[in-house]
Amino acid sequence: MVNTLYLPELREMLAENNAAELREFSTALHAARTAEFMEGLTPAEAWGVLAHADPETRAEIFGYFDRDKQIEIVENSDRADIAQLIINLPNDDRVDILRDVNPEIVQDLLPHLPLSDRRDILRLQSYPEGTAGSVMTTAYARIPEGYTVRQALEELGRQAENIETIYYVFVVDDREHLRGLVTARQLVSAIGKPNTKIDDIMERDLVTVRADEDREKVAQEVARFDLHAIPVVDDDHHMVGIITHDDVIDVLREEASEDVYRMAAMEPLVENYLEAAFHSIWWKRAFWLSWLFLAEMLTLFVMKGFVHSIDKVVALAFFVPLCIATGGMSGTQAATLITRAMALGHIQLSDWVRVIRHELAIGIALGFSLGAMGFVGAYLATDHATLGGAAAWKFSLVIAQAVMAICLWGTLVGSMLPLAFRRFGVDPAYASSPFVATFVDVTGILILFSLAEIYLF
Amino acid sequence: MVNTLYLPELREMLAENNAAELREFSTALHAARTAEFMEGLTPAEAWGVLAHADPETRAEIFGYFDRDKQIEIVENSDRADIAQLIINLPNDDRVDILRDVNPEIVQDLLPHLPLSDRRDILRLQSYPEGTAGSVMTTAYARIPEGYTVRQALEELGRQAENIETIYYVFVVDDREHLRGLVTARQLVSAIGKPNTKIDDIMERDLVTVRADEDREKVAQEVARFDLHAIPVVDDDHHMVGIITHDDVIDVLREEASEDVYRMAAMEPLVENYLEAAFHSIWWKRAFWLSWLFLAEMLTLFVMKGFVHSIDKVVALAFFVPLCIATGGMSGTQAATLITRAMALGHIQLSDWVRVIRHELAIGIALGFSLGAMGFVGAYLATDHATLGGAAAWKFSLVIAQAVMAICLWGTLVGSMLPLAFRRFGVDPAYASSPFVATFVDVTGILILFSLAEIYLF
Repeated sequence: MVNTLYLPELREMLAENNAAELREFSTALHAARTAEFMEGLTPAEAWGVLAHADPETRAEIFGYFDRDKQIEIVENSDRADIAQLIINLPNDDRVDILRDVNPEIVQDLLPHLPLSDRRDILRLQSYPEGTAGSVMTTAYARIPEGYTVRQALEELGRQAENIETIYYVFVVDDREHLRGLVTARQLVSAIGKPNTKIDDIMERDLVTVRADEDREKVAQEVARFDLHAIPVVDDDHHMVGIITHDDVIDVLREEASEDVYRMAAMEPLVENYLEAAFHSIWWKRAFWLSWLFLAEMLTLFVMKGFVHSIDKVVALAFFVPLCIATGGMSGTQAATLITRAMALGHIQLSDWVRVIRHELAIGIALGFSLGAMGFVGAYLATDHATLGGAAAWKFSLVIAQAVMAICLWGTLVGSMLPLAFRRFGVDPAYASSPFVATFVDVTGILILFSLAEIYLF
Repeated sequence: MVNTLYLPELREMLAENNAAELREFSTALHAARTAEFMEGLTPAEAWGVLAHADPETRAEIFGYFDRDKQIEIVENSDRADIAQLIINLPNDDRVDILRDVNPEIVQDLLPHLPLSDRRDILRLQSYPEGTAGSVMTTAYARIPEGYTVRQALEELGRQAENIETIYYVFVVDDREHLRGLVTARQLVSAIGKPNTKIDDIMERDLVTVRADEDREKVAQEVARFDLHAIPVVDDDHHMVGIITHDDVIDVLREEASEDVYRMAAMEPLVENYLEAAFHSIWWKRAFWLSWLFLAEMLTLFVMKGFVHSIDKVVALAFFVPLCIATGGMSGTQAATLITRAMALGHIQLSDWVRVIRHELAIGIALGFSLGAMGFVGAYLATDHATLGGAAAWKFSLVIAQAVMAICLWGTLVGSMLPLAFRRFGVDPAYASSPFVATFVDVTGILILFSLAEIYLF
């Protein structure tokens, strides 16, 4: 939903190039809100408005534009201006943006940047998407060992301008090894005793991550230890950057979406649903849907294989949807439960035996309840005129057994598939309802008709 | 997975009541890690270890125990000691814990607490679960209007001990109205000019939430504005508390789990999968499964209603699983996409027309691709000896049409159900794959056989 409240005024200010009012507009509100009011503007217009804001505010507001608008502005505006903008963007965000910009344009831009920023961008770009390195920033507060509280506070005052957060101050030795952490809270509390040595109050047992670790692991650590930011180190414990809580929140939201989409057997949608391009949504859904459809065709041939049973007792065919739905639903529950438990770090691969035992018990319990219902349903549905009472009983028992067996089977398959996927390095979320359902549909029909052939003919 | 690394040593220290080593153990590591090493201990043992830590450390470690252990300790230990513990717990956490403690014991405990803490607990307890009030803390940094940077820093130093975060300092007037916010970063940057007036540097346009708003909304705001904490106000803009980023991270994780579970048609699992009680898991799964199973029984009677068509062309029965699976899969995709888009705030109810247009187009596109595959499959599967070539063509066309229609139908139902649920105040996540699938299974069979009757007989 685009916020159009200020659009007319904005366009008017632009038309008459009213510098004063445009500057006023760009500073009056929180940058995120200002960006929201500019949603309706074209990238060119938006950039025109930002031209009147001071560089810091400009970068701040720009940071809240949606990605497409950012890209278009970067690619189509004066290189020098963009370079200025990039200098003022947070180190991690600007790398994310440049990732999506036409590489040739990035090459044009880099020379306009100070050497330090250029180096920083190239280094951060070297970390693959999804790793801790790809979401970290190199702009963190650092002080050498041996400082006092007063020195630290003064140094922090100097750095405050250019760093992402001042709340964690990292103590590094002369070779950039991470030695400890002192929080702004500790510094402020010690303001009364300015000569306290940092080394005496700093935290030495730090939770750290390596730059090549999965960003999901980072999120888990930060959530578990309630951290404001987590330091990123290389193999020799050199400090290379930090990941702050706001980046972790973004990671958690993205990862949650990814899992949910994959559980529905579609490729994750990165953009806003209503703004996503038709072909992109179509492809993300059609791809898996087609494969699943092909797999599901197996049911066709299985059914065909049992045509003689259907000819004998056509009623069997009536129960196919019920039976395969039972497997699909129980499988979906199990798969979801296990996938989520893994995502939250509650179960590891090594727990698979406990999981099987667990799901075996649950599957049997669920199977009995559904089987009982199935029996009643079958008994009511079979027409006793043609089949006769005894046969109806026997038939209903077969259905009940089939429902029970398929429910248990679905539960076991659903609980083991995610673990198997993880074991082979595939995202467990892919072991989702449609996959489990498709697999269980085919096998479910086999179970139903096999039981029928054993007991009925 | 319980970490048993230190268990023997810990038990030994407890046995010989080795105060020195136990104190050492409780302070050597990050509290979260210490708690992890104590997972294997009984609540009594764990409390015995904590007895040797200073009150602050004790509360910190206690805060990382799992809920059951916390409850058991609170309910079975000396009231005075527990009161001491409660005083040192973060205001929001202690209320969460007391919510689960036997109310009589809470009544016994309250008299042991200082009046201020007692009042605070009772006030926070009055906010219903799931609201902003239920996750906020009242321990925030506040200064009156008119302070200078020096005064603010000194005041902050005094408050630092007892507040959740010093990074946002809230400026309130003499009647506790929220006037503005100054960050520790601003204060530290201004350390050089200690006489700067706070009123001149503070942020006045603040993002706030009301205590009765949904905690999910809070998480969205914090994520959108990259806040470190968000102030909670009442209707008269009195400041009543703050919600910090670590609480938001917990909310995001819980909400994500809730949605995922509901999408699999089961009640959210709050506890750890491997630790959850069997009956609780069984019930959370059996409840919905049984209802869905009953609903799915409709397929049985629908199939029965078309027995004459099956008698005429038994091959129709072969295609039932394929057709209903098509509806289920396409419906699941649509439902998930819309549910997630709503959770992320990308779609509002008012967008329903755009969503329908969108899904209509997608549904037709997907329907064509699957329909084509369905045609080929049907043509290969029908045995041309009994039904001649022409009939086989006709039959395959009917199947193709059915697949196409059911795919479109599933897509539309899947996309509209979540919106309908939201409209009637039900969590859209319930409009999940199993629900959509069950609904589409029944209707899908109707579509298949109706088309068959129109074209084949």
